[in-house]
Amino acid sequence: MFVAKVIGNVWATRKHKHLNGFKLLIVKPLDTASDKLVGESTMAVDANIGAGPGDTVLIIDEGGSARKILGDSKSPVRTAVAGIIDSANLNGKEKKYA
Amino acid sequence: MFVAKVIGNVWATRKHKHLNGFKLLIVKPLDTASDKLVGESTMAVDANIGAGPGDTVLIIDEGGSARKILGDSKSPVRTAVAGIIDSANLNGKEKKYA
Amino acid sequence: MFVAKVIGNVWATRKHKHLNGFKLLIVKPLDTASDKLVGESTMAVDANIGAGPGDTVLIIDEGGSARKILGDSKSPVRTAVAGIIDSANLNGKEKKYA
Amino acid sequence: MFVAKVIGNVWATRKHKHLNGFKLLIVKPLDTASDKLVGESTMAVDANIGAGPGDTVLIIDEGGSARKILGDSKSPVRTAVAGIIDSANLNGKEKKYA
Amino acid sequence: MFVAKVIGNVWATRKHKHLNGFKLLIVKPLDTASDKLVGESTMAVDANIGAGPGDTVLIIDEGGSARKILGDSKSPVRTAVAGIIDSANLNGKEKKYA
Repeated sequence: MFVAKVIGNVWATRKHKHLNGFKLLIVKPLDTASDKLVGESTMAVDANIGAGPGDTVLIIDEGGSARKILGDSKSPVRTAVAGIIDSANLNGKEKKYA
Repeated sequence: MFVAKVIGNVWATRKHKHLNGFKLLIVKPLDTASDKLVGESTMAVDANIGAGPGDTVLIIDEGGSARKILGDSKSPVRTAVAGIIDSANLNGKEKKYA
Repeated sequence: MFVAKVIGNVWATRKHKHLNGFKLLIVKPLDTASDKLVGESTMAVDANIGAGPGDTVLIIDEGGSARKILGDSKSPVRTAVAGIIDSANLNGKEKKYA
Repeated sequence: MFVAKVIGNVWATRKHKHLNGFKLLIVKPLDTASDKLVGESTMAVDANIGAGPGDTVLIIDEGGSARKILGDSKSPVRTAVAGIIDSANLNGKEKKYA
Repeated sequence: MFVAKVIGNVWATRKHKHLNGFKLLIVKPLDTASDKLVGESTMAVDANIGAGPGDTVLIIDEGGSARKILGDSKSPVRTAVAGIIDSANLNGKEKKYA
C-alpha cells in the first residue's frame, strides 16, 4: 500500500471486458516523508472513489484487494484507488493534501 | 499494473501444456510521465487482445488476473496483456499511442 | 516481511468502507543489520496492535495476511502491522527497540 | 514472468517434505533486449521440464502458478521453470538460444 | 525464492496470536553467483527447520507457501524458511555451506 499522486489517465478501446467502465489512472508514488514523487509512474483503476488529476490517493497493489474495490470478482486488476488522502501527520507536523 | 511496449516474442517448444496456444511477448515497461522505456524487459502472455510488436499495452502482473484473461484456471501464468493503449492524458496534454 | 519504524499517519475521509476504523500508518523500512531507515516510506494498517509514532514494528506485506490481522475478509488491504519489536539479536549483539 | 539462464543448483537435505524430488536451480534473469544477465541470482524449482545448466528458461514467479507446474497443491514454492526458450524475435532480429 | 544467510532474530512480546511459538529470523539475501550478501535484511519465520545464526537457508517469500510451512492456515505470514542449504554447484564448481 502506498500514497500516490494522480497525474493523468489512459484510454484503451480494446481491453478485457471486465475492465469496461472503470477509469485507468496514471499515478506516481509519493514519498510522504520527503514529500517527493519517487520512482516510475504506474497504473491504477478507480471504480468509485472519484479521484482525478492532482488528487493524492491511497493505492492498494494486490489483486484480491483490487477486485473487492471494483466489486467484480471477474476483473483482471491488481492496483486500485482505495481512498483520497486529506492530510498527513509526520513527525508531529501536519500536511494538508486536499 | 503498468504500461509497456511490445518489443518482440519468444518461442518455447518444451513448455507447460496449459501455455500452449498463447503468444509469449517480450515487453518493456513505459514510464508514461517521461515517455521513456524503463527497467528490464519482462515476459507477458497475450491470449486474445491481439497485441504485436510496437503496440503500447496495459500489463497486469498478478496470477489471478492473468488466468482470468487467459480464461484457463489451470495456466501457470503471472503476467498478461489486458488491453491496448490508444492514448494518454498527462498533466492536460494528450499523447496518441495508436 | 520486514521491520519498519512508524513515522506518522494519514487521514482519508473518502475511502473504501472496509477500511473504516483502522489506523493508516506511514512506516519506513528499517535495515536491522545497519540500523538505518532504508528506501521509501510506505503505508500500513494497524488494526489492534496499537502501534504509534516511534515504534519499531513487524510489517507483513501480503493481502491474505493483512486481512487475517484486520479480522475482515472484505477489507482491501495489503500491508499490516503484525507486532511490535522489543529487541533484536544480531551477530550476538542485542539491541533494544522498546 | 521473465527469461533467465540456469547457472547451477543447490542441495538441501533438511527441507520441507513437499519439496522432495524437485530440482532446486540457481537462475539469473536475462534481459532479452540487451542479451545481458541482470540483477541477482534467484532460486527456481524444476519439476518436469528437464532444464539444466546453460539452458535459457521461462520463469514464473507466483505461488499459484508454481504449484500448478509442480502438480502438488501442498508444495511451498513460489518460483518455477515453465518452459525452455528456443529462440526470440526482437525488433525483427531472431536469436537462437537452443 | 532465494538463498539467504541467517544473521540474527528479533523478539516481539506484543504480536498477532498466530505468530506465537515461531522464531522471527533476520536474514540477508545471498547472491550465490558472487557469494555476496546483497540488498537489505528482511524477516523470515522458522517453524520447524531449526535454522540458526550462520545457516544458509532457502527462503520462500509468498503467503500461501509460508502458511503451508507453518502448518497454520490462520497465520499472518509471508516469508518462511523452507530448508537449509548444504551446498551449491555453480558453473561446475561446488561450494559447501554446511
